[in-house]
Amino acid sequence: MRKRFVDKLVSLAKTNSMDAILVCPSEELRFLTNFSPMMCERFQGLIIKNDGKLFYICNLLYVGEIEKEYSQDGVKVYSWFDGEVMAETVHGILAKEGLTGKVIGVNSTAPAFWTLEIAAKSGIKFVNAKPLLEESRIIKTAEELENLRKSAAITDEVFSDVIKFIKPGMTESDIHGFLMDGMRKRGGKDVEGIVATGPNSSYAHYQGNSGVVAEQGVVLLDYGCTYNGMYSDMSRMVFVGSATDEQKKIYQICREATEAAEAKAVEGAFIPDIDKAARDIIEKAGYGDAFMNRVGHGIGYMIHEAPDIKQSHPRKLEKGMAFSIEPGINLTGRFGMRIEDILAITENGTEILNKSTHDMVIV
Amino acid sequence: MRKRFVDKLVSLAKTNSMDAILVCPSEELRFLTNFSPMMCERFQGLIIKNDGKLFYICNLLYVGEIEKEYSQDGVKVYSWFDGEVMAETVHGILAKEGLTGKVIGVNSTAPAFWTLEIAAKSGIKFVNAKPLLEESRIIKTAEELENLRKSAAITDEVFSDVIKFIKPGMTESDIHGFLMDGMRKRGGKDVEGIVATGPNSSYAHYQGNSGVVAEQGVVLLDYGCTYNGMYSDMSRMVFVGSATDEQKKIYQICREATEAAEAKAVEGAFIPDIDKAARDIIEKAGYGDAFMNRVGHGIGYMIHEAPDIKQSHPRKLEKGMAFSIEPGINLTGRFGMRIEDILAITENGTEILNKSTHDMVIV
Repeated sequence: MRKRFVDKLVSLAKTNSMDAILVCPSEELRFLTNFSPMMCERFQGLIIKNDGKLFYICNLLYVGEIEKEYSQDGVKVYSWFDGEVMAETVHGILAKEGLTGKVIGVNSTAPAFWTLEIAAKSGIKFVNAKPLLEESRIIKTAEELENLRKSAAITDEVFSDVIKFIKPGMTESDIHGFLMDGMRKRGGKDVEGIVATGPNSSYAHYQGNSGVVAEQGVVLLDYGCTYNGMYSDMSRMVFVGSATDEQKKIYQICREATEAAEAKAVEGAFIPDIDKAARDIIEKAGYGDAFMNRVGHGIGYMIHEAPDIKQSHPRKLEKGMAFSIEPGINLTGRFGMRIEDILAITENGTEILNKSTHDMVIV
Repeated sequence: MRKRFVDKLVSLAKTNSMDAILVCPSEELRFLTNFSPMMCERFQGLIIKNDGKLFYICNLLYVGEIEKEYSQDGVKVYSWFDGEVMAETVHGILAKEGLTGKVIGVNSTAPAFWTLEIAAKSGIKFVNAKPLLEESRIIKTAEELENLRKSAAITDEVFSDVIKFIKPGMTESDIHGFLMDGMRKRGGKDVEGIVATGPNSSYAHYQGNSGVVAEQGVVLLDYGCTYNGMYSDMSRMVFVGSATDEQKKIYQICREATEAAEAKAVEGAFIPDIDKAARDIIEKAGYGDAFMNRVGHGIGYMIHEAPDIKQSHPRKLEKGMAFSIEPGINLTGRFGMRIEDILAITENGTEILNKSTHDMVIV
């Protein structure tokens, strides 16, 4: 149990009029307790009451494992059995804990089908507590920042290697495997990534793996991992053979947009202004419609967490915040580009954690 | 689009008084449409109205990919943008589609934090539609059954190999890697599995990977994959060196329980009776408290789907149903055992799709 974060969450629950917060298996649960079990279709989760009391509800099948992990912290473990109707038993447990008809916040992985079934039996009002969980960790500690730096360094090192590896004729799957192995070899866990060649790069969250590197063409790389639980996330373009004049022009616009937003991202900066710095450049260049995303997202225990760097987030940057800057231009069906770095506001000012070049890389 | 299943779901929505069903990215969406995009924290999903009309809502970032996949089926794609408040834009879209204040069913992956935010803006009443999605595919076609057979055959073949591979001193991670590679080499996808040595085997959904195979001890294997989208799922015990008298006794009880339930699982059988057949044996042997789970689960497009084989599921087995039988005895902190096969009710009667031996395997 990481008491300092649990305490912070308890205090946030109180100020947000939540009687309790339900945290189902997730990176959020691991952040709070250093442990998260397998998640199947059977309801389970840690419940943190706003008086600081914690209990856990799970299927009987999980009790041994949950007790082993949590009993030293005094967490009471309740169970329901496959032969029962889940929502009925869970309603009884929640009633015993005084939560009938109360307001319970939920984390990001609580499936609606669980909360709907339980709400129907117990009259509990569920509300969104994802923002509270993110708020409780939005200011990174010195140790978390150091792990973010090391995690970013892994993505940088793998980039140095992958640009020597990429050759025409390779599949996206080949390159993906190389990136994942490279991160794992350097101690990265929870590795993930997008490799998109040619027109596939125009789909920001492209999921395929069979595209082939052309003799002349673009490859978009967007990948990251955790290091001691802290995520990295970096995007770079690789041009194979050569780049067309249009590609050079668009790459230059993306680079200027990323660098303008990064320059704006200082302690005390108003978040919408950071988005605007990038958006102005892309709009003035005539590609406003092709810039489809927020300029960035917070990062840490989850690959996307607070603070979102976007127009609709009126807040100032504070010391300890960590986030991506990644304006992009997606020409649907043709190609897409973005340069993404992770930044952190530290004692030393704004640190750009990724060191890989912004110059065009032609292989 | 797999029109026949979509039509079935439309008809189920009508008879269950749902105005529409929301299917977020998942195996359920792939089952209905042969496609499922990446799922991030940004709300998205296919909405199937009970008049048969389909539309999709996603973040602007996904529009290109979604239109490429669904536009030939006449699915209208609506979008919201990172710079907006999601629930406000989505409310406007749902209002335009005539769904304000209506009842919308949700699939298993819709996170509560999405539906709570949308419900708060739009007055929509969300309900659980997971059972409807499962009902629409509970009777497997001849083609689906054939893929289930082939998927089960992959787990059997890998078992033949892994029992030659397991040696004292290996880690769970070594064996897990061998199983995953073995399934992939044979065309299996979505590979997953649990490898639990010694006391770890007593935690049914054990998640670790650092346990070491003892000179004398048990290894529990529970693994599966998809073949053409159809899952397999098999559990077997491997005894290393030798087995104690107690282990032999418990293994024998588990075997009898599995075989009694399998014998009962014929077309027309009342599902609770199948669970009872296994439970009676384990209870009479004095291990009732250590049998913590339902006797089995349906299988197909998801590793767990309808029909649950459990006491609280009063329904009869029908031709085309496929499911696991896996009674188990978990002696918490000591060891756990189960023998799991996949069965299907076909034209030929009950077929046990897994062919791996139920005899004790000592390596």
